[in-house]
Amino acid sequence: MSSLSNRSKLPTHGKALVLSSRPTGRVTTEHFAWRDIEVPPLQTGQVLVETLYLSVDPTNRIWMSDRPGYMPPVPLGEVMRAGGLGRVVASKTPFLRPGQLVAGLLGWQDIQVAQAATLSPINPLPDVPLSLYLGPLGLTGLTAWFGMQHIGAPKAGETVVVSAAAGAVGSVAGQLARIAGARVVGLAGSKDKCEWLTQHAGFNAALNYHDYTAAELSAALRETCPKGIDVYFENVGGVILEAVLPLLNNGARIPLCGLIAHYNDNEPVTGPRGFEQLLMKRVKMQGFIILDYAAEFAAALEQLAPLVVSGQIRYQETILDGGLGKMVDAVNMLFDGQNRGKLCVRMPAAAQPA
Amino acid sequence: MSSLSNRSKLPTHGKALVLSSRPTGRVTTEHFAWRDIEVPPLQTGQVLVETLYLSVDPTNRIWMSDRPGYMPPVPLGEVMRAGGLGRVVASKTPFLRPGQLVAGLLGWQDIQVAQAATLSPINPLPDVPLSLYLGPLGLTGLTAWFGMQHIGAPKAGETVVVSAAAGAVGSVAGQLARIAGARVVGLAGSKDKCEWLTQHAGFNAALNYHDYTAAELSAALRETCPKGIDVYFENVGGVILEAVLPLLNNGARIPLCGLIAHYNDNEPVTGPRGFEQLLMKRVKMQGFIILDYAAEFAAALEQLAPLVVSGQIRYQETILDGGLGKMVDAVNMLFDGQNRGKLCVRMPAAAQPA
Repeated sequence: MSSLSNRSKLPTHGKALVLSSRPTGRVTTEHFAWRDIEVPPLQTGQVLVETLYLSVDPTNRIWMSDRPGYMPPVPLGEVMRAGGLGRVVASKTPFLRPGQLVAGLLGWQDIQVAQAATLSPINPLPDVPLSLYLGPLGLTGLTAWFGMQHIGAPKAGETVVVSAAAGAVGSVAGQLARIAGARVVGLAGSKDKCEWLTQHAGFNAALNYHDYTAAELSAALRETCPKGIDVYFENVGGVILEAVLPLLNNGARIPLCGLIAHYNDNEPVTGPRGFEQLLMKRVKMQGFIILDYAAEFAAALEQLAPLVVSGQIRYQETILDGGLGKMVDAVNMLFDGQNRGKLCVRMPAAAQPA
Repeated sequence: MSSLSNRSKLPTHGKALVLSSRPTGRVTTEHFAWRDIEVPPLQTGQVLVETLYLSVDPTNRIWMSDRPGYMPPVPLGEVMRAGGLGRVVASKTPFLRPGQLVAGLLGWQDIQVAQAATLSPINPLPDVPLSLYLGPLGLTGLTAWFGMQHIGAPKAGETVVVSAAAGAVGSVAGQLARIAGARVVGLAGSKDKCEWLTQHAGFNAALNYHDYTAAELSAALRETCPKGIDVYFENVGGVILEAVLPLLNNGARIPLCGLIAHYNDNEPVTGPRGFEQLLMKRVKMQGFIILDYAAEFAAALEQLAPLVVSGQIRYQETILDGGLGKMVDAVNMLFDGQNRGKLCVRMPAAAQPA
């Protein structure tokens, strides 16, 4: 068994973006610096990976901050952390052969040496775009799965509300609730997104929160959810959570997946007005981080993937070309709600033959 | 079988306190009015109950407000709702005989006609004071039980923090965690209370939150909980919850039992600063109301009562004499932290022979 790529030339140099200062609000290119990478010799157990797609997720913004998060912050002067898909181009392990596609935390860099054990092999189903393995067939789909199935646990006839419902996680979460027989209402940030939710993704209703003041949003939700809310899949926080709280039914569940309304803040987040409803309505609110479920990914994908591939779960993707130079803009697109479904950046290597 | 009391004289009249206006902050006697009760003839299925003890609980304050709560507010002009213990003095049902002790929602009144089906018979264990059936052997003990065992679920070696730890619920909750093998830290409002917790109730440590500013309290807790906090049994809210949030371990559980710091507010409660820690630390926060567990009370008491009667769980009681005239002061004692353990008012009838 050869441990070397059959490519004639292996890359010896690459580019990376390192975090050079911590943003205190919106992210700009000034917070990052370019770095040249020289590929070191591979050690046993290592692989050389070229990056094909980089995932752009709200959680990236958490990693740039040094406020206490669920993982250590990216240290200043180190390559920005990011999920991604790559291709093994050289290997010193029998477990990942050259040409193997992999997913993992690849970072904002076009080439890297990685411990093989930190990467998951990806063997795409026929006719399935590779990028889906960052979206509905990857961590964002799994995030929706574990949050909705394990914490939300909607029952037929219940009412489920999802915020950031046209996003990578929210769109899958809402459709899982629909498949469970719930009435599903999406909250999204544009008329087009709302139309996609109701016309393509099978949501029963969708509200564009830009159409309302905070007080009006609660009233509009009350009208749209005449039986109250049993599950609120939370991606946003802020006034949207406050609009939902008064409408919760007894025993409601809130999978707390994200709080994107707050990630550009520098201060600890103040909890929602109406917090006492968690007590009065006997609500379970549970924060969760997808990485905690790694041991269950394979079993979950066995159930989730057929729903996606068969079209029972619809998805959208926003794929940006332009490589590392697009990363900062891409992060801001999330905060501006400019993406549809999964947002990722396609790297130049994705256009090359394996 | 006689349906009449063997007393020579049955009471025909009594007194009650009705809620005459809604308090907007602290409760005063001006919010209540005296009412004379004339006992109507009993209908089939009814009993006449004289009140022996009235329970005084933070939740009474919720019932006086018309903000959305977990039960309907007490309507203006109606007798104030309260848990209590009473004695059946006349009966038109074979299920409750005259002389039978009962627990239930009796109200601020010394006599009442009640549907037998709304009352639970109490048959005190030998040498057990009747008042314990409002405390560790009653709803407050059960509140601690379900919150700690079902939601907190502490494991041996974990760290458990309890607020209002010297109160009726907190004291039992903390001791249940100790019995489960956890390290237990109590937060209470006086040096004496803290001494009782560590010297009598087996808490590993106790902090008097009046000794600290909000910032200092978090630092003191960090020192007292060097391994972080796995379960926070929440009775209080406000700055105490904010001091706890940064110290939560991954996967922490917060049984949300009460928010007494906020019950005199007229506005919706603003959630705690540091709310994002619920996400970052994958925390489960779950509100609960003891009445939801009614079907499981008997089974829980079979496990809880031996712990109390054997002395493995210690308790304190604060029993006020003086009847209905004491109720308003008693409610305020809770908010001032003047009670030790279960607070109740003993009615004159408790001194009479059955």
